[in-house]
Amino acid sequence: MIEYQHNVHVYYRDVDQMGIVYYTRYFEYFEEARTELLRSIGISVTDIEKNGYFLPVISCSCKYKYPAKFDEELNIFTKITEEPRSTLKIEYIIRNSNDILCVNGETIHTFINKNGKIVKPPKIITEKLRG
Amino acid sequence: MIEYQHNVHVYYRDVDQMGIVYYTRYFEYFEEARTELLRSIGISVTDIEKNGYFLPVISCSCKYKYPAKFDEELNIFTKITEEPRSTLKIEYIIRNSNDILCVNGETIHTFINKNGKIVKPPKIITEKLRG
Amino acid sequence: MIEYQHNVHVYYRDVDQMGIVYYTRYFEYFEEARTELLRSIGISVTDIEKNGYFLPVISCSCKYKYPAKFDEELNIFTKITEEPRSTLKIEYIIRNSNDILCVNGETIHTFINKNGKIVKPPKIITEKLRG
Amino acid sequence: MIEYQHNVHVYYRDVDQMGIVYYTRYFEYFEEARTELLRSIGISVTDIEKNGYFLPVISCSCKYKYPAKFDEELNIFTKITEEPRSTLKIEYIIRNSNDILCVNGETIHTFINKNGKIVKPPKIITEKLRG
Repeated sequence: MIEYQHNVHVYYRDVDQMGIVYYTRYFEYFEEARTELLRSIGISVTDIEKNGYFLPVISCSCKYKYPAKFDEELNIFTKITEEPRSTLKIEYIIRNSNDILCVNGETIHTFINKNGKIVKPPKIITEKLRG
Repeated sequence: MIEYQHNVHVYYRDVDQMGIVYYTRYFEYFEEARTELLRSIGISVTDIEKNGYFLPVISCSCKYKYPAKFDEELNIFTKITEEPRSTLKIEYIIRNSNDILCVNGETIHTFINKNGKIVKPPKIITEKLRG
Repeated sequence: MIEYQHNVHVYYRDVDQMGIVYYTRYFEYFEEARTELLRSIGISVTDIEKNGYFLPVISCSCKYKYPAKFDEELNIFTKITEEPRSTLKIEYIIRNSNDILCVNGETIHTFINKNGKIVKPPKIITEKLRG
Repeated sequence: MIEYQHNVHVYYRDVDQMGIVYYTRYFEYFEEARTELLRSIGISVTDIEKNGYFLPVISCSCKYKYPAKFDEELNIFTKITEEPRSTLKIEYIIRNSNDILCVNGETIHTFINKNGKIVKPPKIITEKLRG
């Protein structure tokens, strides 16, 4: 299992007129967190793309438990528990600074080539993901 | 069942460096579509809020089938099939102008009052949602 | 002079916790409006890019006069008053449905080629922009 | 003069199909940077709002000199050079990790109360801004 913790700060741009983080913004936090998880094991999204691969999201979900608010520091706990095959699943848990669970969610990705065809993940990636 | 069709146009702001709509943007389209569905049956989100209710998302998901691209016209087909109880489920299907299924997803909402407490949906809403 | 009117609707995603449209969102409205202005005179941004040209923003500004709010219908009045040379200037005025001036702004663009080099605007564009 | 340096990282959400940071995103970086500048001198935006004041943007501008790209680390140099009167001017310079100037811009803010009326900045703020 690969896991990573990453912090984000909530700014005005993220918050709606209910005074809580707008629901799509958590998926932006997820993107930031998975980019950093991958970097932490030596995988750069830029390098993946330079090698002609892309890693689009094919499915995602999020459950909202407790609202995050402006100027809060959020902790994103990200993990990959399953070996990647044709798809790669990444899970996220976001807690606020009082350790209250704000959201949990997941994204599922596939590897495609420049022509948009689904392909096997490149070996260099799977090896790093296996740890 | 309540259903509604709404079109959105894809602009530059929506598209990432893969040349496809960034995955969170579909949830913004969903918000636009459900606001219009509610309006079509006489429910204004502003009126809901003026009456002291809010309708936050408590869960959402999306499956990405085919990428939408810059300058495309997308058709969002939105429907409510279940009677609202403590929660309200809204389903979405987005097709491009070639009628290709791009994404399908759902959002689940709850009604809360000004203090953030979960409450029963106001009668005026449930009556309109029952048609 | 070329001018065009385009409407946008304010959704939840656009509004911050002051209950007013977040300041960057107007620039997204500007992008939408200029894409439609260009389309109205037969210029498609996609076609420009297929021909190997891009039209990045090199400067922009906005003055905020009166806040736009959730669920308002906004009218964007867009115009090009100067003949394009190395740069193209586009001006915007946004009014709400009570005809109150919300913002006015401008964007200045340049034409670049695939290598990022500044180039003269293609003739097919300048002819259409001259009317 | 008050100044502050703040770093941001460019993620996928920020980048358009030209492969460069979308023009509105820099204004989000500006918001992040000014929030941190204010915090660095003991001013919390949340505290300002709890005291019944708001600090909306009344004008902003940005000049784009060199495109920032995905996964770059950007340095935002923020400063306040003029004493705040009815308005507060904040200036920004963003450089990439090669110290190339990407953008420079400014935002001008005013203080309003809960009713939206323009008011003098509260003393506690002006004292901190004067250093």
